[in-house]
Amino acid sequence: MSQPNIALIGLGLIGSSLGHALKKNKLAAHISGYARSAATRDKALELGFVDSVHDTAAEAVIDADIVFFNTPLSVIKQLAEEIVPRLKDNAILTDVGSVKAGVLKELTPLLEDRVHFVPGHPIAGTEQSGPEAGFAELFEDRWCILTPDENTSLIAVEEITKLWRGMGSDVAFMEADHHDLVLAITSHLPHLIAYNIVGTAAQLENDTRSEVIKYSASGFRDFTRIASSDPVMWRDIFLANKDAVLEMLGRFSEDLTALQAAIRRGDARYLEDVFTKTRGIRQSIIEAGQDTDSPNFGRDK
Amino acid sequence: MSQPNIALIGLGLIGSSLGHALKKNKLAAHISGYARSAATRDKALELGFVDSVHDTAAEAVIDADIVFFNTPLSVIKQLAEEIVPRLKDNAILTDVGSVKAGVLKELTPLLEDRVHFVPGHPIAGTEQSGPEAGFAELFEDRWCILTPDENTSLIAVEEITKLWRGMGSDVAFMEADHHDLVLAITSHLPHLIAYNIVGTAAQLENDTRSEVIKYSASGFRDFTRIASSDPVMWRDIFLANKDAVLEMLGRFSEDLTALQAAIRRGDARYLEDVFTKTRGIRQSIIEAGQDTDSPNFGRDK
Repeated sequence: MSQPNIALIGLGLIGSSLGHALKKNKLAAHISGYARSAATRDKALELGFVDSVHDTAAEAVIDADIVFFNTPLSVIKQLAEEIVPRLKDNAILTDVGSVKAGVLKELTPLLEDRVHFVPGHPIAGTEQSGPEAGFAELFEDRWCILTPDENTSLIAVEEITKLWRGMGSDVAFMEADHHDLVLAITSHLPHLIAYNIVGTAAQLENDTRSEVIKYSASGFRDFTRIASSDPVMWRDIFLANKDAVLEMLGRFSEDLTALQAAIRRGDARYLEDVFTKTRGIRQSIIEAGQDTDSPNFGRDK
Repeated sequence: MSQPNIALIGLGLIGSSLGHALKKNKLAAHISGYARSAATRDKALELGFVDSVHDTAAEAVIDADIVFFNTPLSVIKQLAEEIVPRLKDNAILTDVGSVKAGVLKELTPLLEDRVHFVPGHPIAGTEQSGPEAGFAELFEDRWCILTPDENTSLIAVEEITKLWRGMGSDVAFMEADHHDLVLAITSHLPHLIAYNIVGTAAQLENDTRSEVIKYSASGFRDFTRIASSDPVMWRDIFLANKDAVLEMLGRFSEDLTALQAAIRRGDARYLEDVFTKTRGIRQSIIEAGQDTDSPNFGRDK
């Protein structure tokens, strides 16, 4: 399978970036695309990151060797039910969702022992949405985590690994449950908190709120950027990763209550200790090469 | 006072940026500097953003027309007690702290009806600290909020306003208490939360923590940047703005509890509603010119 036919189901930020990256790196013989909205399909063709678009997902996948689900998590199962019967034998399904255990459990029974599923998650993105938001370099020098289980075809995992590496990603492997726990703290909880603080600000009295907007060149502005990410995608992430998110949220709330109490009692030493320790984590991230301190670093999520 | 002598008390990120900006815009006849650490004083002279350094704050201000406090909030009062007796008549004190009501209350009784105090707060910064961190453009196109009260000399306010405008800032005026409430949500609470979530991650089991660091190219990475800000400065901010921070933290926690409950009961509509509303605030900030979406925007706090 040196030049597979690839179908992209979902043509938003990630779907369009996949199209651009697959084309730039000459990794596909043909790229077919499906999105629910006709406007998105038309835009995808116009932008040229797909070779063909189709009115249904089932039509888009007929000749596909590899199918990428790039949709909100809540619609993947239904789409899989629709397309699996139309797939060639040994076709490979993969996805890009931020939660992995649920989709692995949902899709495995649908595969008819005939097609393969390789769960995947590129740790890359921006707060932008839609087919215009994508670009070919989104995945370069970023991790892509694959979470196959003991039943996943090794050949299928190799094919998907090759594609991500071809798009410039580093590929890592992890158990689905563990992935979901790690992402709960690195990504899901930060987004929940950002949405929450921006929501709190939105409820302020009118004049205060307008000043919050005017003088927002502070931590708050970063939070509003994070909190402008796609609402449906994030709704589905929190519902799909409920247990791990609630677990991490519980820990976060305990720690926040302790900080609140320290502020109330004026405990300078406690505050300084907490604020000093967090610098070490930052340093580790810079050393791990996950933040180059380049001007562009804030654009990934 | 067209070319005042200016003393900088505190030579970290803000003090050094003031020195560079005053020099670049030719706003001072002479810039004297004081920092507690001899190494910082030497570095300041070497970098050239001051014309002279002094072993005590009292010596640094002898010829000064205008004195900037650029220190953590907790040491301003003591420094003011030390320097006010050495100041020329009608000299002007000003500061750059993130909390304004407390410093106004503390310093007013010390002024001997002979010198002036104009409380100020430039809404600009980075997560870096120290004399090497400053640069002349830090304040350009940023707001500087002044919070004089009914006893503040108008002439002194005009002088300070002129300086900030000369460094490229837009100057706004606000009541000190209201400033502290607005900043509690735009800056103080976001920093508290960022420190908190990074602290929560720091307490994870070893192997999970190393994966959090490795795969941190998510919201979490932005939080670690915010949480790498100067611990002593932030300790003092939370203690000085206790009431407003606790008030905003209370609202934040109520909202977070509601989100938590919505995740637990699987309330997709509630989550999507909250996540959709927050996009509006982001849009308002972009329209207010406080986020140009330029690659560099994430660097200010």
